[in-house]
Amino acid sequence: MNQFKLDSRLDNDCFILSESAGFMLLLMNNSIIPWFILVPKTNKTELFQLEKDVQVQIWEHINQLSQFVMTEFKADKLNIAHIGNIVSQMHIHIVGRFKSDPYWPGVVWGASEKEHYSAIEVNNIKNKLNSVLVI
Amino acid sequence: MNQFKLDSRLDNDCFILSESAGFMLLLMNNSIIPWFILVPKTNKTELFQLEKDVQVQIWEHINQLSQFVMTEFKADKLNIAHIGNIVSQMHIHIVGRFKSDPYWPGVVWGASEKEHYSAIEVNNIKNKLNSVLVI
Repeated sequence: MNQFKLDSRLDNDCFILSESAGFMLLLMNNSIIPWFILVPKTNKTELFQLEKDVQVQIWEHINQLSQFVMTEFKADKLNIAHIGNIVSQMHIHIVGRFKSDPYWPGVVWGASEKEHYSAIEVNNIKNKLNSVLVI
Repeated sequence: MNQFKLDSRLDNDCFILSESAGFMLLLMNNSIIPWFILVPKTNKTELFQLEKDVQVQIWEHINQLSQFVMTEFKADKLNIAHIGNIVSQMHIHIVGRFKSDPYWPGVVWGASEKEHYSAIEVNNIKNKLNSVLVI
């Protein structure tokens, strides 16, 4: 995947927090909830189609992000999903949910209410994340 | 987990397709789409809290169910998710989606339109599944 290009919709909606040879980690530009998106650099659209070692890496990154969201944001619940009906480029949502958030108990996909992050807020999340997780 | 009891809401909404010491496999009673639910027998509510070997089993079962849904139902896309906002008992959705289904491209969670299976249809799915997958 030398010429991996992030889907333009993900690029518009998210900040890129980090990138490695195999992954990009995004933050949805919605400060209401901590909403991370893991993008494996692949043309495949389904997880079961991936090589075993890539699947293991994804699972480990999901675990790390899960712990980060629960520890750092004190979320009540995690929502983890691979959907891809609209943006087919593989991307996995790791979302911290609160019983007090405006989408609860519904899911966040398809919801229109959003608040944008400030640059400082994004940088804070980036710094905290980089100290505990290497994608 | 000697005294595992399936959540009453899952029990009401789904058929039990198979059961082992560690898992239950359910079929959502909605014949519009192939909608499977994997229930690990645990009191934990988040995947990252599970022992590594249980996580590996879950990942393998998701892979097997994914392949089954794509092969047997010729789905256009898989939606895989761990949500649990309403039913906190851990359960993972493996859903086959079609560009022609009434929920597309939205998600299925929260949608109210449903069609019930006949007993014959459920048995057919059960038999096909049991020939390719052991939970």
